[in-house]
Amino acid sequence: MRIAVDAMGGDYAPREIIAGALMAQAKLGVEVLLVGDRDAISTYLKQHHPEASHNKGVEIVAADGSIDMHEEPLEGLRRKPKSSIAVAMNLVRQKEADAVISAGHTGAAMAAALLRLGRLPGIDRPAIGALFPTLIPHKPVLVLDVGANVDCRPKFIEQFAMMGLLYSRYALGISQPKLGLLNIGEEPSKGNDLSVRVHQSLSDNNSIPFAGNAEGRDVLSGNFDVVVCDGFVGNVLLKFAESVGLVAMQILKEELPRGWRGKLGTLLLRPNLRKVKERMDYDEYGGALLLGVAGVCVIGHGSSKASSVLNAIRVAKDAVDNQVLERLREQIKSQKEQVPVSVDMDAPDDPPT
Amino acid sequence: MRIAVDAMGGDYAPREIIAGALMAQAKLGVEVLLVGDRDAISTYLKQHHPEASHNKGVEIVAADGSIDMHEEPLEGLRRKPKSSIAVAMNLVRQKEADAVISAGHTGAAMAAALLRLGRLPGIDRPAIGALFPTLIPHKPVLVLDVGANVDCRPKFIEQFAMMGLLYSRYALGISQPKLGLLNIGEEPSKGNDLSVRVHQSLSDNNSIPFAGNAEGRDVLSGNFDVVVCDGFVGNVLLKFAESVGLVAMQILKEELPRGWRGKLGTLLLRPNLRKVKERMDYDEYGGALLLGVAGVCVIGHGSSKASSVLNAIRVAKDAVDNQVLERLREQIKSQKEQVPVSVDMDAPDDPPT
Repeated sequence: MRIAVDAMGGDYAPREIIAGALMAQAKLGVEVLLVGDRDAISTYLKQHHPEASHNKGVEIVAADGSIDMHEEPLEGLRRKPKSSIAVAMNLVRQKEADAVISAGHTGAAMAAALLRLGRLPGIDRPAIGALFPTLIPHKPVLVLDVGANVDCRPKFIEQFAMMGLLYSRYALGISQPKLGLLNIGEEPSKGNDLSVRVHQSLSDNNSIPFAGNAEGRDVLSGNFDVVVCDGFVGNVLLKFAESVGLVAMQILKEELPRGWRGKLGTLLLRPNLRKVKERMDYDEYGGALLLGVAGVCVIGHGSSKASSVLNAIRVAKDAVDNQVLERLREQIKSQKEQVPVSVDMDAPDDPPT
Repeated sequence: MRIAVDAMGGDYAPREIIAGALMAQAKLGVEVLLVGDRDAISTYLKQHHPEASHNKGVEIVAADGSIDMHEEPLEGLRRKPKSSIAVAMNLVRQKEADAVISAGHTGAAMAAALLRLGRLPGIDRPAIGALFPTLIPHKPVLVLDVGANVDCRPKFIEQFAMMGLLYSRYALGISQPKLGLLNIGEEPSKGNDLSVRVHQSLSDNNSIPFAGNAEGRDVLSGNFDVVVCDGFVGNVLLKFAESVGLVAMQILKEELPRGWRGKLGTLLLRPNLRKVKERMDYDEYGGALLLGVAGVCVIGHGSSKASSVLNAIRVAKDAVDNQVLERLREQIKSQKEQVPVSVDMDAPDDPPT
């Protein structure tokens, strides 16, 4: 398996990205294609990982520039067709890589995926799915969309549900994933206009097992495996949730060592506090998956360090190993054969996204 | 000052509600009117607080029934015009009480407030404001709306901003409150259709100091004093945030006492862990305030225990002491005199709420 790694994307690129890619190469047995500035990458490798030059699992693929965090994605891609994310995406398109990971500009990665790989047939809008840790250890919940589509029609969210369930089943190994719709009450009548309509669509769709509304408090309970929402609410929630772990650790750091008992207790608890941090840390759960494009793309956090890059590559490998893309294609095909294409009477036109 | 307390609303009513009201009476020096089933309340008082019968600061006001959590608010109020929340609201209307607090059905409390007290002139939609603890001790952030209005027009959120800033300034004592719009990016162009339009309105409004977009990660940072959003996103966020404290404490309970060092360390840290819990606990921040109705109404959490009821009454008292209502009326009046009524060209009709 070959993973194209955007070596220039992320706050700590290329250093931490390369370090994480090398870790993945060693631990997961994948080949990594480091895409980016050839000089910068080879200099870094020579200085810090001289052994990598003899490693057949590590290859440099030259690219020219990268999309800046403040650039408009489409414009950036047009101006820099040889940018690292564009070249990495091309490797997947040309089947020279099985998956791509990037911790750079999320919008640029999405745009590059749409332009170079295209959508899966039958999917109107690809979604970004993120794993949130829950109260139950090793049982994350997949939340989607967390930012790709800020204004959604009900059928988009229906498609997110289908993709999320499939991913949960095949890549995460949950035989009967429980699907919830993020909402503000349990009853079908609760919520805003969109969520009431989505509740109806999901209830009417026989090929989607739907467990009902999930309230904000249910997301981390471990009672749901997949939670769907529009990309605006999902993104607010993801960024809030990521900050919460940091806030909690900060409060612990401030309050626990107070007084001599506190200092001694904190010292004794050091290994256990490390476990606490792990369970609250979103980086442990790897990158967000772009679902609905014709290729495996994992988007890492901008602040990704080596271990996050390793985790992102693990997510990509799991998706490839478990043939998530092929299964999505099959599912969409079989649904098309079974049920007529749903017609959304109330909203004939695509809203701006 | 007289506070009407809905003694029948909440998971632990009337016991914990009465206990909290008595605590407030003693600590804050307010008179409490316990509204509900006269027999149930006086029996409870005789058994657990026999001294209350001689206390001139405690009065029972008879009501008949209460609105059930699963009842439709308006229908419930129509069927039970003498229910505890309706009677409590009437006390404020008839100026026999200065404020009302309820830990019962939020929708019913809102509906009763709208029916009995009405909206403040110039406010289209009252909002529920909730205080979230932040990274900075004793510096909560006011988030509104957290559930009253699930589908919003830009001008509603503009009004939330005005009300939130005023409340922050006068009831919370922040001289120059910093206002943020909950959104998924910093740039004005970021967000869904609604948030882009609200950003524009807030930027154009000279009487509202606007500090720009607040992302999910900024809510708990302490960088903002007031964050506005529609009631759907706000409610999802509030319930998620409330659950996060519980999840964090659960993780600590599971991980800290592992091994003998863990057990000893946890024992030593017990008082400090209590501080941690306090800082993560939303109940400490009292009830949510219903802003925009012509009376002071505080809505407690359904799971309120005595200490939450005390905090909710403290919030109500602060609002009365600081004449928040009068100041809101003045502000609205002065704005009307200064600027022409804004016309919302794109959305001539009220959406369903």
